[in-house]
Amino acid sequence: MERREAGSVSSPVCDLLLRASWIVTQDARRRVFEDGCLAIRDGGVLDVGAWADTAPRYRAAEVRDLGETLVLPGLINVHAHASMTLFRGLADDLPLMDWLSRHIWPLEARLSPELVRLGALAACAEMLASGATCFADGYFHEREVLAAARTAGMRVILGEGFFGFPSPMFPTARHCWDVVEGLREATRDDPLSRVMFMPHAPYTTTPESLRESMDLAEALDCPWHIHCAESPAETASCLEMFGQRPVPYLDSLGCLRPRAILAHCVDLSEEEIALLAERGVKVAHCPSSNMKLANGAAPVQKLLDAGVVVGLGTDGAASNNSLNLFTEMRHAALLQKLLLLDPGALPAQAVLDMATRQGAACLDWTGIGSLEPGGRADLLALDLTAPGLQPLHSPVSQAVYAAHGGEVRLVLVEGRAVYEDGRPLGIDLPLLRRELAAAVRWMRDHRA
Amino acid sequence: MERREAGSVSSPVCDLLLRASWIVTQDARRRVFEDGCLAIRDGGVLDVGAWADTAPRYRAAEVRDLGETLVLPGLINVHAHASMTLFRGLADDLPLMDWLSRHIWPLEARLSPELVRLGALAACAEMLASGATCFADGYFHEREVLAAARTAGMRVILGEGFFGFPSPMFPTARHCWDVVEGLREATRDDPLSRVMFMPHAPYTTTPESLRESMDLAEALDCPWHIHCAESPAETASCLEMFGQRPVPYLDSLGCLRPRAILAHCVDLSEEEIALLAERGVKVAHCPSSNMKLANGAAPVQKLLDAGVVVGLGTDGAASNNSLNLFTEMRHAALLQKLLLLDPGALPAQAVLDMATRQGAACLDWTGIGSLEPGGRADLLALDLTAPGLQPLHSPVSQAVYAAHGGEVRLVLVEGRAVYEDGRPLGIDLPLLRRELAAAVRWMRDHRA
Repeated sequence: MERREAGSVSSPVCDLLLRASWIVTQDARRRVFEDGCLAIRDGGVLDVGAWADTAPRYRAAEVRDLGETLVLPGLINVHAHASMTLFRGLADDLPLMDWLSRHIWPLEARLSPELVRLGALAACAEMLASGATCFADGYFHEREVLAAARTAGMRVILGEGFFGFPSPMFPTARHCWDVVEGLREATRDDPLSRVMFMPHAPYTTTPESLRESMDLAEALDCPWHIHCAESPAETASCLEMFGQRPVPYLDSLGCLRPRAILAHCVDLSEEEIALLAERGVKVAHCPSSNMKLANGAAPVQKLLDAGVVVGLGTDGAASNNSLNLFTEMRHAALLQKLLLLDPGALPAQAVLDMATRQGAACLDWTGIGSLEPGGRADLLALDLTAPGLQPLHSPVSQAVYAAHGGEVRLVLVEGRAVYEDGRPLGIDLPLLRRELAAAVRWMRDHRA
Repeated sequence: MERREAGSVSSPVCDLLLRASWIVTQDARRRVFEDGCLAIRDGGVLDVGAWADTAPRYRAAEVRDLGETLVLPGLINVHAHASMTLFRGLADDLPLMDWLSRHIWPLEARLSPELVRLGALAACAEMLASGATCFADGYFHEREVLAAARTAGMRVILGEGFFGFPSPMFPTARHCWDVVEGLREATRDDPLSRVMFMPHAPYTTTPESLRESMDLAEALDCPWHIHCAESPAETASCLEMFGQRPVPYLDSLGCLRPRAILAHCVDLSEEEIALLAERGVKVAHCPSSNMKLANGAAPVQKLLDAGVVVGLGTDGAASNNSLNLFTEMRHAALLQKLLLLDPGALPAQAVLDMATRQGAACLDWTGIGSLEPGGRADLLALDLTAPGLQPLHSPVSQAVYAAHGGEVRLVLVEGRAVYEDGRPLGIDLPLLRRELAAAVRWMRDHRA
């Protein structure tokens, strides 16, 4: 770090000038700068370009040369259950309903707010360590998730989950609206946190609660996020309960709108893909979870071809077992190539788009998902001296196919360092580990 | 590190006592020790067990407490082309034959021995950094790969590749036999290096060269490794050239024997699976490469059910784009679950077996792939303080599903540290990076 006055006295002032061997902007033209420069002011991007052109234009309070690094926009996790990090590796290799009903739900019924916060904090540490700066979360006690995200310095969009039957939290869905209202209050005037509605799934909610929550989402102008078409088993349940497959069922309720984010979308017909495109619905793709639970492969390339916005999510660590979007990018690309038997399916640039600018579009969060003037300064820097990132022919290919995420050396959110050299700066990692070890003992004692 | 005399004067002496919070032995009983101890003498494992039971029995020249780590046997990469690390990210998202004939082969025709060594050294650095201690390599100028493996301190089995047509190396396959003999001489009395025969594939070799190489492999008692049934396109070529599918074709030549290792095995019929099992043939599974090149999904669970030994390989970085066996373990497990729509397919323990003890069986290399008395002291230690490895419910699940490989902190081969805290101890990483950057410039100038 050095203080620096590069430009003349009349040059514009910025807080920070970053230099990196590569900057992948993910802007509309997908510009990539070798020996790049990023000028940051008030948490936003003032300018980006080649160092030689850009740096001399600014007077900077601080200059940081990141050396042999690859800078990307902070990754956006559009579907997570952060607190389920508590259950990482607790019950693997099981069918979805067995896993949920025998292992996960019995524990969730006993989870205290403190444990929900602990799991979310562990998730934030892991997400930062692998370059995510923003996540969309669905769980209960979301106020605890907000607290964890604030401790970590991450962006979050909070979805207090509800069911059609009494849950650990609510006797009815309607009891959830007050919580959402409370979360709206708690996030007001906070540039880093937002709220969405989060019905669990078509087969676990009532038509009334779906309609009512969508009406409220319209009134409050916020996203509406639901698990949908996750598996053929879900489709069978929907057909039995409502006489319709999940997507037409949601459409019959008026819930397919541009503010709707449908997570998973594995079991879709061609007509349903066209319908999602026509309605402007967003999709959250979770390839690891879909594969691990053996639910199938979402038709992502077809969705993109139809014009649907598709973001990338990790789902919870209980069904993944990690929250690493580098892993998800790789799985997403390889899975589409396999599904379509086409090596050109979902190329590196398309999948990086999903993890960045399409993720932002998915959540309707402007200013993130790219590094360009007017946007926010959320970014990660990959250490290119890692053996697995050498040699480098293509920065985008390296990020999607070669990086495992452990090469992340620095993460900024709103221009502020929140992760550096192995340490999430807001989180006491040794304390977190001790608390997690205690939680593991508690879970051993309370498993069904 | 401390010097220590734990046992009495009459206790057996060892060179090193390692302590780790978990030791996953991968022995026949798949024992796992919490707060484990490993006693190492003369590069081999003398004892393994719980620290409290085992440590007091030995007088140790050195004691190392690895703290919060998970120790595993060194991973075994049963199918690699180390030098192709030069081409990482050079040409992605293309069909196999287009990729080979338009991008890879024209460059390979001009590769110097020095570049082959450079690529292999980069590969060794990456493999050590992600916990591999042994690899089976197929390429040309394998003497350079041997030199790189020795610099890195890794185990290697060298396969000088040959074709039925004139290659950059040989006018005919027979010219290869002298090179193999030279490699045998060069590896004699070296516990870390061995030789195998490496015909490229059924459709790129002559029946005569396949028969002759198998006869030589029998005479010299070494493995015989071939790409086989990699894609439906290969099957079509074989049918056209020889009137048979790849597996029956190899059987008609007498090449399906226990010393045969067939890489890929994507396009197999049920009868062919049964035939491979009957003949005792080994299979090298490369899930990332098969998915990335859109060749399909190998029927790994069916092969295992039939009793076939299946190891795990990365293939080359040009079609992966990494050499990380943690990535391959995850892909392998998730791919089988998807292929069979069964979340119980290829569970964590089975896939860890593939990357360790089954890999050793694949290469017929006794003493590696597990940590048990009488075996060699090849191991890796994962840093469990990494946020993505917390909390820990199951060590095996954590290694297969949660680790990305970047958590590897220490690697031993024959009891000797070869990688520690980000540094492959035998490799000058900054020099390697400069040489790789020069190689990238050379490749830019020499692309077709």
